[in-house]
Amino acid sequence: MIYSKIPLAQTVVQLCKAKQIQHIVLSPGSRNAPLTIGFTHDPYFKCYSIVDERCAAFFALGIAQQLQAPVAVVCTSGSALLNYFPAVAEAFYSNIPLIVLSADRPKYKVGIGDGQTINQKDVYGTHVAYAANLKDDISTNKTFIEAEKELPLYKNLEHKLEKALGLQQSVQDYNEQEINKALNTALIEKLPIHINCPFNEPLYERVHSLSLKVNTLQTPIINPDFSHFDQFKTDWQLSSKKIVLVGVLEPNSIEEEYLNVLANDPSVLILTESTSNIYHEKTIPSIDKLIGALTEAEFKILQPDLLITFGGLVVSKKIKQFLRSFPPKQHYHLGLHQANNTFYILNHWFKMPLSTFFSTWKPDYKPLESNYQSFWLEQMASRRKHHAAYMAKIPFTDFKVFNSILKALPKNIQIQSANSSIIRYLQLFDFKKTQHIYCNRGTSGIDGSTSTAIGAAITTKTPTLCITGDLSFLYDSNALWNNYIPKNFKIIIINNGGGGIFRILPGHKNTENFDTYFETKHQLDAQHLAKMFHFNYNKVSNENELEQKLTVFFKTNNEPQLLEIFTPSHLNDDVLLNYFKAIK
Amino acid sequence: MIYSKIPLAQTVVQLCKAKQIQHIVLSPGSRNAPLTIGFTHDPYFKCYSIVDERCAAFFALGIAQQLQAPVAVVCTSGSALLNYFPAVAEAFYSNIPLIVLSADRPKYKVGIGDGQTINQKDVYGTHVAYAANLKDDISTNKTFIEAEKELPLYKNLEHKLEKALGLQQSVQDYNEQEINKALNTALIEKLPIHINCPFNEPLYERVHSLSLKVNTLQTPIINPDFSHFDQFKTDWQLSSKKIVLVGVLEPNSIEEEYLNVLANDPSVLILTESTSNIYHEKTIPSIDKLIGALTEAEFKILQPDLLITFGGLVVSKKIKQFLRSFPPKQHYHLGLHQANNTFYILNHWFKMPLSTFFSTWKPDYKPLESNYQSFWLEQMASRRKHHAAYMAKIPFTDFKVFNSILKALPKNIQIQSANSSIIRYLQLFDFKKTQHIYCNRGTSGIDGSTSTAIGAAITTKTPTLCITGDLSFLYDSNALWNNYIPKNFKIIIINNGGGGIFRILPGHKNTENFDTYFETKHQLDAQHLAKMFHFNYNKVSNENELEQKLTVFFKTNNEPQLLEIFTPSHLNDDVLLNYFKAIK
Repeated sequence: MIYSKIPLAQTVVQLCKAKQIQHIVLSPGSRNAPLTIGFTHDPYFKCYSIVDERCAAFFALGIAQQLQAPVAVVCTSGSALLNYFPAVAEAFYSNIPLIVLSADRPKYKVGIGDGQTINQKDVYGTHVAYAANLKDDISTNKTFIEAEKELPLYKNLEHKLEKALGLQQSVQDYNEQEINKALNTALIEKLPIHINCPFNEPLYERVHSLSLKVNTLQTPIINPDFSHFDQFKTDWQLSSKKIVLVGVLEPNSIEEEYLNVLANDPSVLILTESTSNIYHEKTIPSIDKLIGALTEAEFKILQPDLLITFGGLVVSKKIKQFLRSFPPKQHYHLGLHQANNTFYILNHWFKMPLSTFFSTWKPDYKPLESNYQSFWLEQMASRRKHHAAYMAKIPFTDFKVFNSILKALPKNIQIQSANSSIIRYLQLFDFKKTQHIYCNRGTSGIDGSTSTAIGAAITTKTPTLCITGDLSFLYDSNALWNNYIPKNFKIIIINNGGGGIFRILPGHKNTENFDTYFETKHQLDAQHLAKMFHFNYNKVSNENELEQKLTVFFKTNNEPQLLEIFTPSHLNDDVLLNYFKAIK
Repeated sequence: MIYSKIPLAQTVVQLCKAKQIQHIVLSPGSRNAPLTIGFTHDPYFKCYSIVDERCAAFFALGIAQQLQAPVAVVCTSGSALLNYFPAVAEAFYSNIPLIVLSADRPKYKVGIGDGQTINQKDVYGTHVAYAANLKDDISTNKTFIEAEKELPLYKNLEHKLEKALGLQQSVQDYNEQEINKALNTALIEKLPIHINCPFNEPLYERVHSLSLKVNTLQTPIINPDFSHFDQFKTDWQLSSKKIVLVGVLEPNSIEEEYLNVLANDPSVLILTESTSNIYHEKTIPSIDKLIGALTEAEFKILQPDLLITFGGLVVSKKIKQFLRSFPPKQHYHLGLHQANNTFYILNHWFKMPLSTFFSTWKPDYKPLESNYQSFWLEQMASRRKHHAAYMAKIPFTDFKVFNSILKALPKNIQIQSANSSIIRYLQLFDFKKTQHIYCNRGTSGIDGSTSTAIGAAITTKTPTLCITGDLSFLYDSNALWNNYIPKNFKIIIINNGGGGIFRILPGHKNTENFDTYFETKHQLDAQHLAKMFHFNYNKVSNENELEQKLTVFFKTNNEPQLLEIFTPSHLNDDVLLNYFKAIK
């Protein structure tokens, strides 16, 4: 085996291995050579090389999203790690354990005008769960001698400082402890962490055996806290109108038996979204379809006494407005990770796995007589009928395109949706249990959706379809600069020639100012990028052609496919905005 | 005139106008609509729309670099402003006043699970000179009523908090003061600043007259501090070996008369770089050419008694190593902005404009007899001769390509160089006074060079040539997604099929591991991107063809040109590494 000669690099690599962090996404650089040498020469690790760090981090995020386990990104010093930041923030708000391993210059070379050097310490601020700012092992390897020769003044200052602070712990012990803490945080909290690794030159020296034994700290086990549980059960029992609202959720996160307990309680209305990946005949899988055009009086009827939430962020703006304007008396959040006080009335967070909570609750669960659920399920059934009628009569537009895609969609598929209008359209359709939907809803950014989709595609066995808009696709076009794209990977771009979402928002449409600064109209398409990055490319701009092409598109698995669908932007907004009234 | 109805938006826009910040680079978004409405409806502002915020910020940086004045970028909430960060860091270390105006949700909607929301407060940490975290004017506009209705609980909390802290200053006064402080900091310090602007809905409402009068705080005048000046003059007079080392410098930053004073002192050796934009027959314009292969004994002869530095960061690694290993007794830095203690021996920083310093010094300046300058100028003359001979005999490689470009280069041109090997090659050639060289040396990143070049190109009257490598070009390919590219803008890509710099560094070459994770070999070229973004594209891969194409390339100004030069990567490293010995 080949290792970097630098003890700190050995320590980082060995601890990643001990913690079973197997997937490592590397970007080229010299300062990070000690880590690159270590990771790429150990067959335990599955390494990837991606040049653009913005894409690299979203690609890693896609892998971690599928594995539900930490994935590391490794970059050089300077601005490299700033390009990770959009993905780090997404990981933070989506509870994905992205491990950032940034190489840095030793402390005495920071802030003195050396190249590719910024202030990397704590650079992600509050958007990582732990930041380990490691020390360079100047005192434990031979570069010390060079540094001593080179920098007599610095050395004295540093020694004095260390003495003054009474730091007796060795650099190695300190680093080991910090790396352990950081990795354990990622494992326990499922949140991104940052480990900043300063390396002295020479950076490329190798050895054939490890020069140290690394101590691994076990991840502590946290016992669930059931305080407030009795109060919760009392509140639940006293409420005849209860909403269960589910945000972004990994498929199969809640066992069917527990879902049945809730769904078979007539006083419980389960509201889910496409991104909840929950399928049950007694749930509302499309919130906006149900509540999109309710009157104040109807909202009052819907107003719950009690709300429980689980999962991550909620897409629907309308449900947030509703529950803020017509707040329930109680709100409890369930789940191991982040609880958001989205409605300003959160009573308590049961910080534990869903299965722990439900298995404790199920034995003495009692359903309550109520017509709450049945009333709203009937409403939903009526919406579905009108939805079908509306779809039959609308012209070829974004909305109609989604209808065609849904019809053609294979039974087993994973959809990686871009943000903005794409995910909002997807919310208005019903999916099958074996059709899984993912979307970067942590920051809901235009950036990184395609890269995330590719990371997910290489990890899951399910065929992956990325659905994106023209702006999102172009924003992340470097996603395609990737040597790992599976042959059955597919992208659909809905190209409405600009930011379609702005037509839905209450701006001043159809002025030059709107076209330029809001919709940002363009004439671009994806065919040149498809050619450059070896995607099979097709484009369509009417319904018949679309339905034909979709059939072939989903069947072709011998090279990556890109289908670009051009829609008339000036029709899209009215067709969507009229929908909510039309289906009521 | 049309204004946003929101007072905070009016205040930001009016203060930017009062401070003569004229160029505004906007990225599409809804939360920033109040700012977009304000800026784009006032003909005072020159507005640009760029979708990818990473490119938008580097584009703005290019404009600011040319204007030597603040330029603003405006984005929506969420991850958008994180994509600015690479350019913000570059601006920070390059002393460029980039103004980040980020829209945000009001405070009560941050951290509660709303979409496109991150913790924007102080997000750039130590990489901005000022961060103004503004308050939303919930209490000064009509949205207060909606908020009050919507959020009874929040309102009470907020009011209690304000009371408890004894905050009696009105929101408007506070915001005005913070914006003034931030903009004044950018103007005085020539550093990036961040103004975070929380806006309540409705975001799109407009009015036809301003609803408030905004107070402008003047930028304070700072008097130069001449303490230590006598000590400096004494040190200077006692030193018979003096080096003047110039980092990145705007063309025409130092008057010729002052340059003559220094250059005509036999005890002074002026070391400059291409990025110093200083031209004088008695300077060394190519440091590495002079010192690239000196022996320890020769370094001792070169070792100065005293060093003065001015300008920004220094490209040459060799000069840094030399001055750390053979440090002068004294080091003084001159100039209004950042001083780096690059050699750990900085005595004093004369924080004032160069002209102020030199005009005070010149009247009693006395040259000192010494053969220091003449000795090294003779060495340099000999290097130049050998350089020409070496160029004549080397095969077609990166180095030879630069030789051809330099020969064909028009007299009046601005070169925007990418980092990594490109700028290092450029350092080895001599330029004319009317050939200006720029490079993002603040963080020396692979990111953003093309975007910066385009920003510069639209601002300067001088024709602009961007020289970049294949990785840098591909990294920033979204730079071309830009509606403002001048017809005479030109790009040369030196495509050596990967990260050529890694072949020059001391890694283990010619293994699969090296190819994949260090050099990151690829087969891509730029022709598809050129077609997509309407550049005229040519490619060459030998010397004769290159010289022919270059002539046409520089003459064609009716559409943007992209010339891609393919070089054999396996020859490049030896040709460069042998050079330093060959020219001695």
